[in-house]
Amino acid sequence: MYKVDLNSDLGESFGNYKLGLDGDVLKYISSANIACGWHAGDPMVMDKTVSLALEANVAIGAHPGYPDLLGFGRREMKVTNEEAKNYVKYQIGALWAFAQGRGMKLQHVKPHGGLYNMAAVDAELAKAIAEGVYEVDKNLILMGLANSELIKAGRNAGLKVANEVFADRAYNSDGTLVSRKKEGAMIQDRDLAISRVVRMVKEGKVCAITGEDIDIRADSICVHGDNPQAVEFVNSIKKALEEERVKIAPIGEFIV
Amino acid sequence: MYKVDLNSDLGESFGNYKLGLDGDVLKYISSANIACGWHAGDPMVMDKTVSLALEANVAIGAHPGYPDLLGFGRREMKVTNEEAKNYVKYQIGALWAFAQGRGMKLQHVKPHGGLYNMAAVDAELAKAIAEGVYEVDKNLILMGLANSELIKAGRNAGLKVANEVFADRAYNSDGTLVSRKKEGAMIQDRDLAISRVVRMVKEGKVCAITGEDIDIRADSICVHGDNPQAVEFVNSIKKALEEERVKIAPIGEFIV
Amino acid sequence: MYKVDLNSDLGESFGNYKLGLDGDVLKYISSANIACGWHAGDPMVMDKTVSLALEANVAIGAHPGYPDLLGFGRREMKVTNEEAKNYVKYQIGALWAFAQGRGMKLQHVKPHGGLYNMAAVDAELAKAIAEGVYEVDKNLILMGLANSELIKAGRNAGLKVANEVFADRAYNSDGTLVSRKKEGAMIQDRDLAISRVVRMVKEGKVCAITGEDIDIRADSICVHGDNPQAVEFVNSIKKALEEERVKIAPIGEFIV
Amino acid sequence: MYKVDLNSDLGESFGNYKLGLDGDVLKYISSANIACGWHAGDPMVMDKTVSLALEANVAIGAHPGYPDLLGFGRREMKVTNEEAKNYVKYQIGALWAFAQGRGMKLQHVKPHGGLYNMAAVDAELAKAIAEGVYEVDKNLILMGLANSELIKAGRNAGLKVANEVFADRAYNSDGTLVSRKKEGAMIQDRDLAISRVVRMVKEGKVCAITGEDIDIRADSICVHGDNPQAVEFVNSIKKALEEERVKIAPIGEFIV
Repeated sequence: MYKVDLNSDLGESFGNYKLGLDGDVLKYISSANIACGWHAGDPMVMDKTVSLALEANVAIGAHPGYPDLLGFGRREMKVTNEEAKNYVKYQIGALWAFAQGRGMKLQHVKPHGGLYNMAAVDAELAKAIAEGVYEVDKNLILMGLANSELIKAGRNAGLKVANEVFADRAYNSDGTLVSRKKEGAMIQDRDLAISRVVRMVKEGKVCAITGEDIDIRADSICVHGDNPQAVEFVNSIKKALEEERVKIAPIGEFIV
Repeated sequence: MYKVDLNSDLGESFGNYKLGLDGDVLKYISSANIACGWHAGDPMVMDKTVSLALEANVAIGAHPGYPDLLGFGRREMKVTNEEAKNYVKYQIGALWAFAQGRGMKLQHVKPHGGLYNMAAVDAELAKAIAEGVYEVDKNLILMGLANSELIKAGRNAGLKVANEVFADRAYNSDGTLVSRKKEGAMIQDRDLAISRVVRMVKEGKVCAITGEDIDIRADSICVHGDNPQAVEFVNSIKKALEEERVKIAPIGEFIV
Repeated sequence: MYKVDLNSDLGESFGNYKLGLDGDVLKYISSANIACGWHAGDPMVMDKTVSLALEANVAIGAHPGYPDLLGFGRREMKVTNEEAKNYVKYQIGALWAFAQGRGMKLQHVKPHGGLYNMAAVDAELAKAIAEGVYEVDKNLILMGLANSELIKAGRNAGLKVANEVFADRAYNSDGTLVSRKKEGAMIQDRDLAISRVVRMVKEGKVCAITGEDIDIRADSICVHGDNPQAVEFVNSIKKALEEERVKIAPIGEFIV
Repeated sequence: MYKVDLNSDLGESFGNYKLGLDGDVLKYISSANIACGWHAGDPMVMDKTVSLALEANVAIGAHPGYPDLLGFGRREMKVTNEEAKNYVKYQIGALWAFAQGRGMKLQHVKPHGGLYNMAAVDAELAKAIAEGVYEVDKNLILMGLANSELIKAGRNAGLKVANEVFADRAYNSDGTLVSRKKEGAMIQDRDLAISRVVRMVKEGKVCAITGEDIDIRADSICVHGDNPQAVEFVNSIKKALEEERVKIAPIGEFIV
């Protein structure tokens, strides 16, 4: 039987600022990436989000980002590899404390935004992050862009890894994401997006923007809970996968 | 045989800013309270400080503070008890990650600055902090002002507690510290400070500013490493205690 | 003819976080208090808000707060008076830069949240803030709680002052606001709120929570744009005042 | 008669953290670049630094940086040009407030660290910064790396500009600075450094690392006050220039 994880970035509120329909999207996903207070989130939000995930029986992971709340962690920052490593460790630990308070374990770590993007292509940065994760807890699964440098670095560091794919993004022929600045980068047609996801999961293939099929491994699918339409789309993806006899399960249940 | 802990606040540098002679004072102390990035410290400094403590065979604890780097965590902030609890959990977790990376365990938690002062007198705040510590790890020792509300709250929460005393501060007859704004608040005479410390440890007594002896329990003595004179004073306290057959040991070795 | 100002706190978004229906409420108010990046707001938001106010022909003022984005500036912080003074100066200057870029002048300064509340009752803090405002620009109007210490301090410092009243809050017999924690603190009945506002403006009287009438001077009425209902209420207040032949005008037009 | 400005980055302390011998270096320089609270500095430090500059009769300018206190503004951040523009405006305004309080005018703006380096080579970023400065106050002088994109952008925006040179850095044949990572990047020999400075000022020439002379315009020389040796070197540069009949004067006195 096919298995795949549905993951979403949660806990992105901050103080007086509210973001995301966390409670709604938790009904459909299997893994939650929880912001750790650097690019988003704060200790009150983290505790609440861990609690909501527990109630919804959703696995949790740390979602560490750059120290850039103003830019929501999306802007690239030239931090050193050693800095990146320690920033990731710090944030994993911070989230761990709230998991401890609820009797939960952290399942995975997925870097956020600019850090995710840079770690996908920068082998040295990816290595530093992977080693940081390993040093905190070698049982954590490292989630990154499918087939990216981060995935390779995770494996090399001795970690289990999870290849993440995107329902709403086009792929280049080398398996990287088409830049959002280019035409055709976003898959707007929801039915097409869903059929692509199903194919990625069941066949390990996706049609690149250049027209040819490429290999892609889909351990986890990134979905969004920003607004009611996004949440409804998550529900649609989940239903379509289940109709195709794909079981939605947290990566911790099937990644080896 | 008498035992007492010597503790100092370390890891207070931040980015480009250097503070404290951590490497020097580590030669004389038995427990290090490490700043966790909120009022001071950052992930690079935390990792370095944990490493230095390991080399020096000094036990480590978290030193959580208010979210106020600008005020070095010294200014009182009216956060809610729930906020204080989660802020403390977050910071313990952050430091835990670096201890994990070095194969160390956290021994204790000691709130910093304004949070320390408020938790000494506000029973509800103290309870929230103690419960936060317990939820993260019930084996952590909670360090606070000797005989304060924080000590009581720690015991009530089921934690081991460590009563902290100050060599260089005068005490009121109720066991609280004389405010720094009042005359006589600081014990300037180093020989007097040392003899007071020895008496607190061996007799459990100290002469209050009002002239009478009061009971005080000294599990740990707070010392400073801000400058060479301060470090030399730590050495003097250590020597004096050892000459009096008091063993310097981390609280984890003798607090039950 | 009676004149009164309608003011609202705007520009409270931050980075990726959106807050408030600024464009909507600007249709009805005469003065905008713009957050300056400490408790809320950022340079992009500030520039945008100044631009929106210019389009809407609404006067602008600085809305300085504590350095506490996490607490939205609502939590009291024990900063020194000198710190408060310099924090206010910094934030006024920051907003001034964006006004310069649009050819606008700053009309007023109104402290935010915890700083507003403390400055209403702490004469020394109020004096420090007033002097800070004066030093940056002695033509700025200082807005504060009607009849509070901040109003007195502003006058003593040589500034023009604006007494602010609240439509939705109950008053104690000494003219202070009834704490939100007490029953009856909020005026829920919108018609009552409006009639109270009209009376404050035209008669200079309001019925205190204890039942007796007290004197109150209403130069400016604080209104909110958090949600569509709040904006509609602002419209209702404006209409009611105009029907009562009260002209809505920015304080800069009538405060002397 | 030849004239040149000596500038130094001041006001880089933050809260409890002290940095730089500002009082000492102010004796020898003619212009101070004052940190504005983003990469360094805070309102208390800014007010103090403006006051010290006034006493020392030294002209002041804003030294805006990235929002990265943790990295001291040295790490490149991919902010948009619009963001950079507004960040610079914000920081100029903040410093302006303290100048107002002392009856001083801002003479110039010099971007800091990563922002300075990127603006030297990125024409679009440089344009955004120059326009931001112009919008706040068109009389401000824009200081940047000699002959860099920032200098060109400043001229194009209608600003007066000041070409900055470095005594202790080697130059490439195209007038850019040799990267610190390359051998020979730093001029270690103090006498050589001084003779190079004198030649840059009097002849408008410097010997590039490749051996040939290149044209360079030196309106202002960057000097440092980090430690007593650095301050003594500033004194030496000043003396050498004066012996060569070069007058040390703030750029505001001679840039047209």
